[in-house]
Amino acid sequence: MLDFSCLDRVRRRRPLIHCVSNQVSANDCANLVLAVGASPVMAYAPEELEELTAAGAALVLNTGTPDASRFACCRLWGAEAVRQGRPVVLDPVGAGGSAWRLGQVRKLLDAFTPAILRVNLGEALALLGESGRERGVDSAASLPPEARARAAAALAKRLGTAVLLSGPEDFAADGEQLWRIAGGSALTARVTGTGCMLSALCGVFAAVEEDALRSALAASAFWKACAALAEESAGGRGPGSFRAALLDAAWRMTPGEAAGITVERVR
Amino acid sequence: MLDFSCLDRVRRRRPLIHCVSNQVSANDCANLVLAVGASPVMAYAPEELEELTAAGAALVLNTGTPDASRFACCRLWGAEAVRQGRPVVLDPVGAGGSAWRLGQVRKLLDAFTPAILRVNLGEALALLGESGRERGVDSAASLPPEARARAAAALAKRLGTAVLLSGPEDFAADGEQLWRIAGGSALTARVTGTGCMLSALCGVFAAVEEDALRSALAASAFWKACAALAEESAGGRGPGSFRAALLDAAWRMTPGEAAGITVERVR
Amino acid sequence: MLDFSCLDRVRRRRPLIHCVSNQVSANDCANLVLAVGASPVMAYAPEELEELTAAGAALVLNTGTPDASRFACCRLWGAEAVRQGRPVVLDPVGAGGSAWRLGQVRKLLDAFTPAILRVNLGEALALLGESGRERGVDSAASLPPEARARAAAALAKRLGTAVLLSGPEDFAADGEQLWRIAGGSALTARVTGTGCMLSALCGVFAAVEEDALRSALAASAFWKACAALAEESAGGRGPGSFRAALLDAAWRMTPGEAAGITVERVR
Repeated sequence: MLDFSCLDRVRRRRPLIHCVSNQVSANDCANLVLAVGASPVMAYAPEELEELTAAGAALVLNTGTPDASRFACCRLWGAEAVRQGRPVVLDPVGAGGSAWRLGQVRKLLDAFTPAILRVNLGEALALLGESGRERGVDSAASLPPEARARAAAALAKRLGTAVLLSGPEDFAADGEQLWRIAGGSALTARVTGTGCMLSALCGVFAAVEEDALRSALAASAFWKACAALAEESAGGRGPGSFRAALLDAAWRMTPGEAAGITVERVR
Repeated sequence: MLDFSCLDRVRRRRPLIHCVSNQVSANDCANLVLAVGASPVMAYAPEELEELTAAGAALVLNTGTPDASRFACCRLWGAEAVRQGRPVVLDPVGAGGSAWRLGQVRKLLDAFTPAILRVNLGEALALLGESGRERGVDSAASLPPEARARAAAALAKRLGTAVLLSGPEDFAADGEQLWRIAGGSALTARVTGTGCMLSALCGVFAAVEEDALRSALAASAFWKACAALAEESAGGRGPGSFRAALLDAAWRMTPGEAAGITVERVR
Repeated sequence: MLDFSCLDRVRRRRPLIHCVSNQVSANDCANLVLAVGASPVMAYAPEELEELTAAGAALVLNTGTPDASRFACCRLWGAEAVRQGRPVVLDPVGAGGSAWRLGQVRKLLDAFTPAILRVNLGEALALLGESGRERGVDSAASLPPEARARAAAALAKRLGTAVLLSGPEDFAADGEQLWRIAGGSALTARVTGTGCMLSALCGVFAAVEEDALRSALAASAFWKACAALAEESAGGRGPGSFRAALLDAAWRMTPGEAAGITVERVR
């Protein structure tokens, strides 16, 4: 059972989470950061780089709806955050969608090493060079859990960072350990930006927890606990109600409830 | 009564719908595409043009919150989609709002012919050269239904494309046929982006249905059925609840329920 | 007790409110403008400057998620609106977040004088030169009410404009008067963009009310009345439900209910 004292620390300290977000999920990410108890700031201008990095407790970079200048911005912000000792979460949205996007994500990973890389299966396979194409940013994984566990572990080893690979079951890995997180709700895949929101949560927990893998585990379990609660209260109505219920759940969630999600070490 | 077998095809095939969306409604459009059973991808970068077009089953272009580079992007993406044989839906948001915007929309229509043009009355009149100004992107139509039917038919003839003109009643036309779709909810006009969402639905159905006019009819009837269901479940509370209920309805909607909307051929 | 005849005027005239908004709250602002009974248009392109300004009844400028070109756009639009005699509301989001942003906001205030400046405490202190840094755009105020009253009055005097400083209690001031508006809900601080939405409301009321301070008072009281109603109907569930309930409340709100909020003149 996961120790969720980090949730109390979030609510006591209200860390400032700096997000470079995308056109689709910026609002949802800001609302989730607020609901869980932290404080979001969304900003991009290079002129604010040093001051905002110094003020923030963690940085979350999201590459959705990108263009060349957004990627340039992500490289700058990521490198500066690492330089200032802030944990960086990278969500390489749609990394497998085009050769250009994959190349840009690789350039990001050359510019700095994130504390946590949060991916879905398509993005993980693209980064491993095992698939040139995915089916869209919200596509459900079709491969068996074993393939997903293996991809998470391989990517973590290759990049030397913690990896959270999300899906029906999440897998979290660093170079040594591999964990499986189960539960949640199938409706999560029917709401856009739930992956981006999970990445924002990784930033929230990384802001109050030194160990990157433990931050990723907390974020994964917390989000699955929210989904389970939201499905219970609103799942029968549909994804519109479920989406609002996710924020409600993040606000109400207790450490005890969050700890109810299955989190087990695979190796 | 409309044949809604296309809805089953959407849910079975989960087509990838590529949207060039705007700052206001991108999230709502992505959520609706997911709710109905398809898969959205929002992207703009010219570097991804060929690959994303090849991967997508339909393209939806929306000109809201535009600047010159967004229009340039729409021209590129639209032309490439036509070149690769993908159906294109064009939503010329606010076409009548300024001479510049109208000129940019005309340049789009010179660059490629969309399969479906989804407009409101103000946009249709502007494109027909009958009005230099509209009252804002969410303005309700004040002209009688006859004027709206006529505008839809005239625009379809002029441009050689299927036209869906939405409002309290929708009218769908191609060069020969004219249809009227009635029902829905007056609250639809009190939620921003419901027109953009209807355009996204046109893309969803065009991805699984060859005939453009039938795709437009299906999208119109489906959206009015969602609105009627959402009004029943949440209309009394107001537009915030109604908006979430629209997504719920899109997720739950059956072909039989959708077919309950009045769809009649005018000529 | 505040006279809320302006609410009837909004619903009768449906003024067009032009918003230069940000990535996070554009959708919420548009939906609130619609819910209260006005009509929003979100646009930025300099090519549309004159026509859209002429068509609009008020302009709301928001500096969230900015870059240099967005600030340049705000300067142009603000100056043109003033030139054409339209009331301008300025929401200098995160003005204290970086020296660059503060400098850009000062340049805005050099280019034109807004009718209403809507700020939180951190932004007010930054503009008064009393604090070089705030804790993020959604940060709750920690200083006592007296400090906030003083900041509102000082800023109004300094800039020669009406100032609405929002928080647990709002303070509205012009060069002479100072008002206190109390009530609402603590959950307002747990939903992103509620400050931006209040600024949009200032634009809605300024469109139908000559006196800037009275417009700010109406917006403040209306928004606190919405929050109180939303807390009653959805507050127990959490911020996701509360957010939808805010729009519901804006749509249902009567002049009598809105007038129930405590609005008192301090001096």
